[in-house]
Amino acid sequence: MSLLFPTLAFASEGPSSTMLDMGLNTIWLMLSFILVLLMQGGFILLETGSTRMKNAGHVAGKTIFTVGLGTLVFWAVGYGFIWGENSNAFFATGSFFFSPPIGAEEGYPASIDFLFQLAFAMISLTIAFGGFAERAKLSVYVLFSILFTALVYPIIAHWIWGGGWLTGHKQDFAGSTVVHLTGAAAALAATMLLKPRIGKFNKDGTANEIHGHNQVFTALGVLLLWVGWFGFNAGSTLSVGDGFLGYVGFTTIIATGAGAVAAMFISWLSTGKADITTTLNGTLAGLVAITASCAFVDPWAAVVIGLIAGVLVYGSMKMFEKLKIDDPIYALSVHGVVGIWGTLSNGIFASPALVERVGVGEAGLIYSGSFSQLWVQFYGVVISGLFAFVVSYILLLIIKAIVGLRVTEEQEIVGLDLSEHGVYGYPEQMKKTTLNG
Amino acid sequence: MSLLFPTLAFASEGPSSTMLDMGLNTIWLMLSFILVLLMQGGFILLETGSTRMKNAGHVAGKTIFTVGLGTLVFWAVGYGFIWGENSNAFFATGSFFFSPPIGAEEGYPASIDFLFQLAFAMISLTIAFGGFAERAKLSVYVLFSILFTALVYPIIAHWIWGGGWLTGHKQDFAGSTVVHLTGAAAALAATMLLKPRIGKFNKDGTANEIHGHNQVFTALGVLLLWVGWFGFNAGSTLSVGDGFLGYVGFTTIIATGAGAVAAMFISWLSTGKADITTTLNGTLAGLVAITASCAFVDPWAAVVIGLIAGVLVYGSMKMFEKLKIDDPIYALSVHGVVGIWGTLSNGIFASPALVERVGVGEAGLIYSGSFSQLWVQFYGVVISGLFAFVVSYILLLIIKAIVGLRVTEEQEIVGLDLSEHGVYGYPEQMKKTTLNG
Amino acid sequence: MSLLFPTLAFASEGPSSTMLDMGLNTIWLMLSFILVLLMQGGFILLETGSTRMKNAGHVAGKTIFTVGLGTLVFWAVGYGFIWGENSNAFFATGSFFFSPPIGAEEGYPASIDFLFQLAFAMISLTIAFGGFAERAKLSVYVLFSILFTALVYPIIAHWIWGGGWLTGHKQDFAGSTVVHLTGAAAALAATMLLKPRIGKFNKDGTANEIHGHNQVFTALGVLLLWVGWFGFNAGSTLSVGDGFLGYVGFTTIIATGAGAVAAMFISWLSTGKADITTTLNGTLAGLVAITASCAFVDPWAAVVIGLIAGVLVYGSMKMFEKLKIDDPIYALSVHGVVGIWGTLSNGIFASPALVERVGVGEAGLIYSGSFSQLWVQFYGVVISGLFAFVVSYILLLIIKAIVGLRVTEEQEIVGLDLSEHGVYGYPEQMKKTTLNG
Repeated sequence: MSLLFPTLAFASEGPSSTMLDMGLNTIWLMLSFILVLLMQGGFILLETGSTRMKNAGHVAGKTIFTVGLGTLVFWAVGYGFIWGENSNAFFATGSFFFSPPIGAEEGYPASIDFLFQLAFAMISLTIAFGGFAERAKLSVYVLFSILFTALVYPIIAHWIWGGGWLTGHKQDFAGSTVVHLTGAAAALAATMLLKPRIGKFNKDGTANEIHGHNQVFTALGVLLLWVGWFGFNAGSTLSVGDGFLGYVGFTTIIATGAGAVAAMFISWLSTGKADITTTLNGTLAGLVAITASCAFVDPWAAVVIGLIAGVLVYGSMKMFEKLKIDDPIYALSVHGVVGIWGTLSNGIFASPALVERVGVGEAGLIYSGSFSQLWVQFYGVVISGLFAFVVSYILLLIIKAIVGLRVTEEQEIVGLDLSEHGVYGYPEQMKKTTLNG
Repeated sequence: MSLLFPTLAFASEGPSSTMLDMGLNTIWLMLSFILVLLMQGGFILLETGSTRMKNAGHVAGKTIFTVGLGTLVFWAVGYGFIWGENSNAFFATGSFFFSPPIGAEEGYPASIDFLFQLAFAMISLTIAFGGFAERAKLSVYVLFSILFTALVYPIIAHWIWGGGWLTGHKQDFAGSTVVHLTGAAAALAATMLLKPRIGKFNKDGTANEIHGHNQVFTALGVLLLWVGWFGFNAGSTLSVGDGFLGYVGFTTIIATGAGAVAAMFISWLSTGKADITTTLNGTLAGLVAITASCAFVDPWAAVVIGLIAGVLVYGSMKMFEKLKIDDPIYALSVHGVVGIWGTLSNGIFASPALVERVGVGEAGLIYSGSFSQLWVQFYGVVISGLFAFVVSYILLLIIKAIVGLRVTEEQEIVGLDLSEHGVYGYPEQMKKTTLNG
Repeated sequence: MSLLFPTLAFASEGPSSTMLDMGLNTIWLMLSFILVLLMQGGFILLETGSTRMKNAGHVAGKTIFTVGLGTLVFWAVGYGFIWGENSNAFFATGSFFFSPPIGAEEGYPASIDFLFQLAFAMISLTIAFGGFAERAKLSVYVLFSILFTALVYPIIAHWIWGGGWLTGHKQDFAGSTVVHLTGAAAALAATMLLKPRIGKFNKDGTANEIHGHNQVFTALGVLLLWVGWFGFNAGSTLSVGDGFLGYVGFTTIIATGAGAVAAMFISWLSTGKADITTTLNGTLAGLVAITASCAFVDPWAAVVIGLIAGVLVYGSMKMFEKLKIDDPIYALSVHGVVGIWGTLSNGIFASPALVERVGVGEAGLIYSGSFSQLWVQFYGVVISGLFAFVVSYILLLIIKAIVGLRVTEEQEIVGLDLSEHGVYGYPEQMKKTTLNG
C-alpha cells in the first residue's frame, strides 16, 4: 500500500476529460472567432473592389464603423434575443448588456461564445449592406445596423440554432440560411427600395456594366474570406473532440474548389472570356453552399454541391440583371440564391452516418428515399427568408420616412466619399481624374 | 489486485495537469505571437494609406526591413535586457544572443516567449516610426531601429513586466504604456526634431490637411490590427487555464466598438461630415485604451473606457495640429494620449474581483474609494513616458549629429521612394502624374 | 477499499496521453493549414505588385482559380500519389478521390493531414506560375495546374516525405526542396519555353527594368507570407508535444530578419540605393532557406543561413538577368537558388542534438567533420530539381503542341486582363491611361 498511494495521488492530480475538452475548445473557438472577424477584411476588399473609386473610402470605412456599432447593439440586446434565459419558439430574452463569467469549468467560456456569435451576426450585417452600395445615406447605415442587429438576425438565429421552432429539425450547420440568406434578404429589401444606381439600366431596359475598380482587392478579399471560412464552418463544431472539425474543413475546401471551377468554365464557355468576377463569385458560392451541409455530406456530394453552386451563381447574376434589380456586390446571387441552394442541398445529400453524428434532422432524399428532410429544409428556408425580407423591408420603410434612404443625384454622381465624409478615399487619384475629366 | 494494477497503470500513463497546461499554452501563445506579427500588416496598410503616393514604397518596405533588423537586435540584446537572469529594478542582463531549449516541461517553451515578446517590441518600434513619416532619411530608420530595440523598449518592459520597480504595482495588462506610449513618446521626440513636413503649416500658423492617399488601405489596416489585437490582449494572459482569455477578448471588442462609435459621432456632430480617418482612429483608440485594462474591468467600464478614448482621440488630433506638431499617422493621438488614458483608466475602473484574479495592484477609485492605484498608474505612466521620450530624444540628437535626420527639401518634394530607394512604389501611376503634371 | 475505488474511478475517467496529443495536434495542424492557405494571399499581393497594371486582375484572379482547380486534382489523385496505401520508392497509389474518416483516435485526423498537404502543394503550384507571368495563355494555367498537381509535385513529395527513396535520409524539414525548388524548377521550364516578355531585353542584349506596379502590395504580400510561414515551418512538426514547434518558429524568424538585413545592405552598398524589391526578396530568401533547416540548426547557424540567403538572392537576381532569363516575380532566385542553398545548409550546419531529435539523416559538416549528409543533400536536391524541371518541360511542350503557350504580341501589349478575361482589373485607372495615352 505504501507503493500504491503515491501512484493514486499522482493519478488524482491529472486533469479530467472535462478539463481537457474545455481547454481545447477554448482555443479552437477563440481561433474560430478571430478567423470570422478576419472575414470582415475580406468583405472590405470585396466590396470596395466591386464598386467605384469615388465611393472607396466610404465603403471601406463604413464596414469598420457598422461592425463597431453592431458590436454594441449585439452586446446590449442581440445576443440576449438569441440565447437569453427566457426562451420560446420565436425569441428569447435575458442576458442583455451581457456580462459573462470570467472563466469556465466545462464546455467553453461564455465570453468566447459571445465573440463567436457576434462575429457571425456581423457577417450577416455586412452581407446585408451589399444591397445598399453606392447610393444609401450614411445615416441609413447607422439606423439599419442597430435595427438588423437587434431585431432581424437574432430572430432567425434563435429559430434555427437558439432553441426556437426550427432548432433540431432544420439542418444548417454554419448558417447558409441564418447568416447568408438573412443578410441577402435584407440586401434585397434595400436594393428594391433604393432603386438601381444611376446609369445601371437604360431607358430601353438594357443594363450597363458598372465595373468595380479593383480586381486585386476582390481576389484578395475572396482569399481572406476563404481563409476565415474555416473558422466559420469548422468552428461551428463548437468543439475539438475527435477532430470532426477537420472533416468539416475538408468538405468545405473541396466544395469551394468545385464552385470556382464551375463558375469560370461556364463563364468562359458562354462568353469566350473567363470572367474574373464570375470566377470569384463561384468560389464564394462554393463556400456559401457548403456552409449548411459541411457536416452532413460525403466528399463526392460536397463536390457536387459546389459545382452546382458555381453554375447557379452565374445564372442568377444574369437573372437579377434581367429583372432590373441592381446588385452591385452580388449579395443576392452569392448569399441569397446560393444560400437557399446550400440549405436545400442537405435535404438531398445528407448522409445517415453524419446526420446521426450531428444529431439534427434526418438523412437526405438520396439516402433515405424520403422527401421528409428536404421538406423541412424547404419550408425552413422559405419562412426564414421571407421573415428576414419582410421585416427588413418594413424597417427600411420606417427609416425612409424618418431620414430618407438615398443620397441626392448630385451626391451620388460626385461619390459618397465626398458627400458623406468630406474627402475622397483616394484624394491624389481622384484629383487627377477631375483635372483630366 | 490483479484487476487493480492494470487500472493504475492506465491512470499513471495519463497526462498530468502540467502537461495539459503546457500543451494548451504552447498553442495559444504561438497563435498569439502570429496574430501580433500580423498586426505589422495592419501598420503597413495604415501608414501607407495615411501618407502620399510618392512615399508608399518606402513606407511599406521600411516596415519589413526594420522588423527584420529589430528581430536581430532583440535576439542579440533586447530580450536579455528585459528578461535576463541578472535582474535589478531598472534592467536585466543575460540571455544575450538568445538560445532557447528546444522544448519545455511546464508553462510554455522559452522559444515562444521570445517570439511573443519580440512581436510586442516590434509593434512599439513601428508605432515610433509614425513620427518619422515622409521626411526622415533611411539611415535614421536603420540606426533608430537598433537603438530603440536595444535601449528604449527593453527598459520600460523590464520596469513594468520584467521584474523591475513597477512590476506587480502598475496595472498594464497588455501594454498601453509599455508598447503604445513608449512608441508614441519616441514618435513625439522624432516629430519635434524633424519638424513638420513641407506644406503642413502655413506662415500664418494655420494648418493644411495632407490627406493620406488610400482609405481602403487604412480601413483594412485597422481591421487587421483589430484581428491581431486579440493575440495582443488575450494572448497576454500567457495561459489558457479556465478560459480567462475569452473574457479579455470580450472587454477588448466592446471597448473597440465604443471607440469607433464615439469618434464617428463626435466628428459628424462637429463638422457635419463623418470623417473616415477619425472613425478609424477611434477604433484604434478603443483598442489602445482597453489594452491596459482589458483584464481588470467590468463590461460596462470597458464600454465607458472605449467611448472616452474615441472622444479623446478626436480632441487630441485637433490639439496637436493647433500645437503645430505634425503627426502624419496620428501616433501621438492614438498611441500616446490614448495610451495614457488607458493606463489611467485602471486606476478608476479596476474591479476588486479581477484585480485579485490577475494579482497586480489594487482596485480602482470607483470600487475602492481610494486614489491609491490611480496614483500608481499616474506616476508610472508619467515616468515611463518621460523616460522613453528623453532617451529617444537624446538618441535622435546623436543620430542627427552623425548622419542628419531629414532628407533634403528636393528629396522630400520628389518623395522618398525615389530619393531613398531609386524607384517609385507606384511607377506606372507616378509616371502618369509626371506626364500630366 | 471504499475510499480507493472512487479515486480509481476518477482516474480512469481522465484522458489518456494519446487523447491529449490528438486534441492538441488537431488544433495545431488545422491552424497551420489555415496559415499556409493565407500565404496564397501573400502570393496574390506579391505577384500582382511585381507585375503591371494591365495584368493585375488576371494575376490575382488566376491564383484563386488555380488553387480551386488544384484542390480538386489533389483530392482526386495528387494526395494518393504521395500517401496512398500502395507505396514504392518512386510513388504511391490509392486514396484517390480521398474520403477521410470523420474523426481520429490518435495522431491527428486524416482530413487535416489532407488539408495541410494540399496547402503545401498549392504553394508549390503558385510558385511555379511565377515563371508564366504576363504572357502565358489562361488555358495553359488550366492544363498545367492539373498536370503539376497530379504528376510533378506528388512525386517529389513522395520521394522526400512520403516513404520514397529519399525519405529518412534527406533533411528537408518543411520543403525548401519539395515545395520551393519544385515550384521554381517548373517556373524555369516555363520561362525558358515562353521566352522573355516583350521589352525585357534589348537587341544588344542589355536588360530593361520592368517595374512592378505596386510596392505596397509586394511589401504586404511578404508580411502575409512571413505570417503564414509559421504554419509552414512550425506546422511541419506535425505535433505539439513538448513545444518543439516554438523552436522551429524561433530559428525561422531570426533567419528571416538576417535575410532582410543582408539583402538591403548589399543592394544599398552596391548601387547607393536600398532597393525595396531586393529587400523584400531577401526577407523571402531567409524564409525559403531556413525552411529545410529550421528544425536542424542552432540559432547562430540560422542567422548565418539567413545572411547568406540574402546575399545569394541579390546575386542571383543579377545572374538571371545576365543570362537573359526573364523572371518577373523572382521565383527562380527566391525559391530556386535559395531553395537549393537552404537544402544544402543542413549538410553544413545540422547539429547532432537536433538531428537526433528529428530522426532524419546525420549531423552536418561543421559538427561531424563528415561530408556524408552534405552529399545526401546535394544529390537529393540535384535529382529532385532535375526531375521537376524535366517533367515540367516535357508537360509544357505537350501543352504547347496542343493549345500553344503564349498570347499574341497584340494581346500581351494590351494586357491579359483584356485578352483573357474581357475587362481590366483596374477599369477606371486603365481607361484614364488609354484616354491620356
